[in-house]
Amino acid sequence: MIKPNMATMLGFVVTDAKVARQKLQETLVELTNETFNQITVDGDTSTNDMVVVMANGQAMQDEPELSEGSEYEVFKAALKHVLGFLAKEIARDGEGATKLVEANVNGAHSKEDAQHVAKAIVGSNLVKAALFGEDANWGRIIDAIGSTNAKLKIDSVDIALNKTKIVEHSLGLDFDEEALKEKLKSDEIIIDVELNNGDFKGQAWGCDLTYKYVQINASYRS
Amino acid sequence: MIKPNMATMLGFVVTDAKVARQKLQETLVELTNETFNQITVDGDTSTNDMVVVMANGQAMQDEPELSEGSEYEVFKAALKHVLGFLAKEIARDGEGATKLVEANVNGAHSKEDAQHVAKAIVGSNLVKAALFGEDANWGRIIDAIGSTNAKLKIDSVDIALNKTKIVEHSLGLDFDEEALKEKLKSDEIIIDVELNNGDFKGQAWGCDLTYKYVQINASYRS
Repeated sequence: MIKPNMATMLGFVVTDAKVARQKLQETLVELTNETFNQITVDGDTSTNDMVVVMANGQAMQDEPELSEGSEYEVFKAALKHVLGFLAKEIARDGEGATKLVEANVNGAHSKEDAQHVAKAIVGSNLVKAALFGEDANWGRIIDAIGSTNAKLKIDSVDIALNKTKIVEHSLGLDFDEEALKEKLKSDEIIIDVELNNGDFKGQAWGCDLTYKYVQINASYRS
Repeated sequence: MIKPNMATMLGFVVTDAKVARQKLQETLVELTNETFNQITVDGDTSTNDMVVVMANGQAMQDEPELSEGSEYEVFKAALKHVLGFLAKEIARDGEGATKLVEANVNGAHSKEDAQHVAKAIVGSNLVKAALFGEDANWGRIIDAIGSTNAKLKIDSVDIALNKTKIVEHSLGLDFDEEALKEKLKSDEIIIDVELNNGDFKGQAWGCDLTYKYVQINASYRS
């Protein structure tokens, strides 16, 4: 807010496609809720974030507006790809971050539950610090899950870190800690969570919490 | 959870007073919402925190149970003092903390608003890092306020840091930055916020975000 590196996020997406205005707005809201609104660097929400999409219709000047059907679905998938890519790049570029963290939650009772759980995991300072330390601390992940209001079956949570399953039926598995630590040196950490409590899924993205984050935000004027 | 220093919080309060059971429980809930539930070290909520109060009646064996009136108010004030003290000590003792941070919010539209705003301020990683850096970054405080759902008059927020007024009518004041930086070296930071939008007040307590926090939580097993 007071330094370029603290700028409020402004997202601009442009397309040559000719898209019906109202439909485009609805789609933007829907997709933003699944992408930009599912990232967190430090939990601090700027009061001024915004994403706009502008369609100039150049590519289809003599065609009818896109607003439904398979062509619209292609457009929507492309828009989601762009929004998701931009959102992830913001998380990856978080102050001091060394890792992009992605949480994929499946088997939730509702879409809201899935998204809340995913965001709680990537938003937890304890999880973020553990991942900076390349530590497979599943207790912190399950704690972040439990701290939400999501409907859970208490003995049915499975967790994998970079495809290594570490929790099954809410209990820690024996796993090769050294081998997993090696995998956690990656600059992308994928946390897969299966709640086994429904058919809904959600994703969220964040980054690790590092010394550099503190340095940047504590002494940026020095 | 997996190390003594990560233990779930267990709070026990005992009294010799003879207090009516139901009334004591109601009072505990009310006061816990103003004390323990208003602290945050890192925003990570344990799923197992608890506070209990036990009254054995020893001091008043032959007297009627306390449940209302001025004597009960004296008991309640004493209980609040104890709960508030314990809660603040937890915040002060946060992992790696060098400062206790207290937010006092006045002039809110509702008690909930006051408490949410206070907790948002002490819970903001950006505010916490700035205070570690002894930096009077009021932009981050006002951003934390604005990120809540509290009803606000946008041009009516006043902020003081350790009694130095730095924001009036939502605008930054000229202040002696060096003198304030000196005051912020204190191990207690008081953030007073006046919302000028009602008669309700609330408090919250937290701590600064430090290199040591990251170290403790990233490499506690090394």
